[in-house]
Amino acid sequence: MLGYDVDAGMTSVGLQSQTLPSENADVAVPTSQAVPLVIDDATADVLFRQARTVQAFSADPVADQDVHAAYDLMRWGPTAMNISPLRYLIVRSPESRERLVQHMAGSNQPKTKTAPLTIIVAADPAFHTRMDVLSPHLSEVAAGLAAAPEARAEMARMNALLQLGYFIPALRAVGLHVGPMTGFDAAAVDAEFFAESQWQSLVVMNVGQPAAEGAHYPRAARLEPAEVSATI
Amino acid sequence: MLGYDVDAGMTSVGLQSQTLPSENADVAVPTSQAVPLVIDDATADVLFRQARTVQAFSADPVADQDVHAAYDLMRWGPTAMNISPLRYLIVRSPESRERLVQHMAGSNQPKTKTAPLTIIVAADPAFHTRMDVLSPHLSEVAAGLAAAPEARAEMARMNALLQLGYFIPALRAVGLHVGPMTGFDAAAVDAEFFAESQWQSLVVMNVGQPAAEGAHYPRAARLEPAEVSATI
Repeated sequence: MLGYDVDAGMTSVGLQSQTLPSENADVAVPTSQAVPLVIDDATADVLFRQARTVQAFSADPVADQDVHAAYDLMRWGPTAMNISPLRYLIVRSPESRERLVQHMAGSNQPKTKTAPLTIIVAADPAFHTRMDVLSPHLSEVAAGLAAAPEARAEMARMNALLQLGYFIPALRAVGLHVGPMTGFDAAAVDAEFFAESQWQSLVVMNVGQPAAEGAHYPRAARLEPAEVSATI
Repeated sequence: MLGYDVDAGMTSVGLQSQTLPSENADVAVPTSQAVPLVIDDATADVLFRQARTVQAFSADPVADQDVHAAYDLMRWGPTAMNISPLRYLIVRSPESRERLVQHMAGSNQPKTKTAPLTIIVAADPAFHTRMDVLSPHLSEVAAGLAAAPEARAEMARMNALLQLGYFIPALRAVGLHVGPMTGFDAAAVDAEFFAESQWQSLVVMNVGQPAAEGAHYPRAARLEPAEVSATI
């Protein structure tokens, strides 16, 4: 279970909530930091501070090569034994989009239908077959993994989620905005699209430019460092 | 299981491998892209393309506030229902470091012992107790989650891994270099440090500046976009 079931028949909810948080006010987000960064403040804003999950997109088209450019950046991020198990399916044609939309949670259906582009981000449990390229010094480990499908599935999931965390800022670095969702029937999506590849879907992500109106929910709060950390 | 067992008694190996890939040559990494970025190339290099997992650190100290500055950036990244379950324990004192090192896989012990700072990145399955701040419009969902500890544990893990993917570039944005490891006895670390908080450790990460010598393994290859994606 990726999220928490609030939509009947779905195993999870979206990365953004299914309920419009209309009673929430925008929280203030800093535009500079007490500790100097080695990147400029405008870039920190684009990648993190001012970046927003997009609920409604403009009609501006998104090219495959823009998504690939983001992958070109994020692929250098670290993974366990460099296994790099993240995969992505670009769902472009109207027919393909329809096949996907039917498996989305109710409130995710219209935005997935109308987004300029949607990608399914997945984990590949067969990553060990590429370790000859990725980790040529670990051929014995790769051979052992061939006989350990459950370990591979968990490794693929863990490391692809980590890579998804690189992918989202990388898409922003290419100038794209994203609306990631876990509110979909993952088993049905896997059966629909990944019966052959055996990829395991993690999130469905709409990609494009924000619409002039209705693009964002109010900015929600975050916890302070003192609330999430300790020093010993 | 986070990784794959190649160290006796350990449940996983490091994000970097346990075996020095001395037979590997550095692969070439591009320093510009075919598709223009909205961030400058030097920043793309710092965050992704030229950033390297560090195996040996200099003695330069790392302040808690530097780590908090990275959290200040990454906390704005999206999570499911904004639950933001990532937590981190800064292991600073020599006594605390000793308590951690004993649970690291063999080859991870010396580098964890000598790094200027080490942090344990964890997931908090009790994230629902903070949803009053994070997602005030979802109080019914939060109440339901209180009675669903298994769903919470999985949601915490999934979303904290996603946040870890934001945290690593954010640490680099603060000028830090990282050496993340999954090669440790997670159950023992959780018992040692998180008996009260019930946080679940995900990675142990050394943080600092690279040593003048021996800081990096050769740069390993990555897969091309055409090898990890398809368009339909």
